[in-house]
Amino acid sequence: MRIFACLERSLIVCGFIQYQPAVRSKPRRYHPSQMKRIPYVLIAAWMAASSPMASAQQPRPGPRPAPETGEKFKIGIAGYTFQKFTDIDQVLETMQRVDVHYLCIKDFHLPMTSTDEQIAAFHAKLKAKGVTGYAVGPIYMKSEAEIDHAFDYAKRVGVKMLVGVPNYDLLPYVDRKVKEYGFKYAIHLHGPDIKIYPDAEDVWNHVKDLDPRIGMCLDIGHDTRNGKDPVADLKLYQSRVFDLHLKDVTGATKLGYSLEVGRGVIHFPELVRMLREVGYTGVCSLEHEKDMADPFMGIAESIGYLRGVIEATK
Amino acid sequence: MRIFACLERSLIVCGFIQYQPAVRSKPRRYHPSQMKRIPYVLIAAWMAASSPMASAQQPRPGPRPAPETGEKFKIGIAGYTFQKFTDIDQVLETMQRVDVHYLCIKDFHLPMTSTDEQIAAFHAKLKAKGVTGYAVGPIYMKSEAEIDHAFDYAKRVGVKMLVGVPNYDLLPYVDRKVKEYGFKYAIHLHGPDIKIYPDAEDVWNHVKDLDPRIGMCLDIGHDTRNGKDPVADLKLYQSRVFDLHLKDVTGATKLGYSLEVGRGVIHFPELVRMLREVGYTGVCSLEHEKDMADPFMGIAESIGYLRGVIEATK
Repeated sequence: MRIFACLERSLIVCGFIQYQPAVRSKPRRYHPSQMKRIPYVLIAAWMAASSPMASAQQPRPGPRPAPETGEKFKIGIAGYTFQKFTDIDQVLETMQRVDVHYLCIKDFHLPMTSTDEQIAAFHAKLKAKGVTGYAVGPIYMKSEAEIDHAFDYAKRVGVKMLVGVPNYDLLPYVDRKVKEYGFKYAIHLHGPDIKIYPDAEDVWNHVKDLDPRIGMCLDIGHDTRNGKDPVADLKLYQSRVFDLHLKDVTGATKLGYSLEVGRGVIHFPELVRMLREVGYTGVCSLEHEKDMADPFMGIAESIGYLRGVIEATK
Repeated sequence: MRIFACLERSLIVCGFIQYQPAVRSKPRRYHPSQMKRIPYVLIAAWMAASSPMASAQQPRPGPRPAPETGEKFKIGIAGYTFQKFTDIDQVLETMQRVDVHYLCIKDFHLPMTSTDEQIAAFHAKLKAKGVTGYAVGPIYMKSEAEIDHAFDYAKRVGVKMLVGVPNYDLLPYVDRKVKEYGFKYAIHLHGPDIKIYPDAEDVWNHVKDLDPRIGMCLDIGHDTRNGKDPVADLKLYQSRVFDLHLKDVTGATKLGYSLEVGRGVIHFPELVRMLREVGYTGVCSLEHEKDMADPFMGIAESIGYLRGVIEATK
């Protein structure tokens, strides 16, 4: 059974180099002639290990690395998930509990008017919890001034990707700014609810002739709600998929609503296989939109489901 | 892609019989001669469906059935998980949030001294939340009187299975009681922590010559901590595995500790495949023992992980 290979991996990861029997084995007996050759310090160590207190003194094996370890893609959380929780400490505590280390920073956690000192303090908090703020957004941009502001903010935050929703007529301006700043710009698609960028095909058609650093944040829930297949779209538009919003929805219709990953119509084993097939190197960021006043169990269930799928499709 | 088969299943389950386009299609135009043959009531219905309010009036598609639907095994929760939460309402609310419907009843939720009226009220609460109390226990039994008490309690609760830990020398008495009551008796194994029933092999050796209704609650975490492979043991002892405590542990040693499903050394895809291979018809009950003062996210992550594995191994 694979459990033993698994165990071995775990023990190696945790710094154990040999199998620890569940029931402590009998003390190995040495012939007197051998005893002379065993340094006293080793005898003392052996006696300590054989004592009734041994369990308390030996290091306990820890958790295994998350199953996405070794995959090209990463698992993250979109800050929007915590819309009702603007205290970044609570966000980080939640991320720590679900062992997730990538955050797409939303402005209600780090306002766009933040000073450089506030930004530095924010990053220090993230770092202390082992979290990387890998992008900012989504940010709606309805004028050149708003685009300027967003790019300046992203630069000061120090990320290399902006998730944005620019009016269609501002795309040429975004193109110029991307060339100026060298950022990736991922356009967030939003299904049938708003008029611009309903799905991946629409984003693709608007960006395919622009700078290759302009692409999409593929929101798999909204793409589905607009009648599209996000797994097929990930393959089709892979060269322009820079970020991914992970969620599930109840139906491929405007009436379909967002809920815990695994409870809707999106087929996550297919999605994970496609992430591998296209070699996606970005973050799959959970954007959990159900029970936003108490999203914690939904976040945990969603991350758990995704990791179960990742493990089972290896 | 399988998403469309999935969608179709979802729509059928939810009572939708045809695909709902994401963007409402243009009203179909009828020739005047056809109009005469369309009853006015249908025209009225069509007009209503075409109005801007249609979305609000159409039923929204709901969640898909949990992925274990159609499997022979069930997913449940062991009451011990809620050791710090003796209010059954909170237990049921949590179960509802994770869409789990089988509970192994612990005495701190339904005391063994409960009157028949209290038992009836308890069952009514469970029923209102769609939960079945499928067994009672684990109950430690150190005398014939304690065995009598436990069997009487189980009978009054109305379950057909007792999860128990009888002293070894009381097994002949358990055998007589099982024949008298017709219950299944699942012995809970507990790894290297206590002296009796450390693993599945030990239970098997003690029950294999007794009534076939005496078997085990295979605690896969404790079996692992005693150096055994619970997937292999499920196969070996399948005829006597009546209940299963689902958990993960960090190591195949006494020092290994319980944590969220998927974070330890147990290989759940193998477990799920074995549940199918042996045709296990019982409940896999999550016994979550980490963060017992705040177990909710861990419960959700564990159930999510298991369901992700079930979906991905279909």
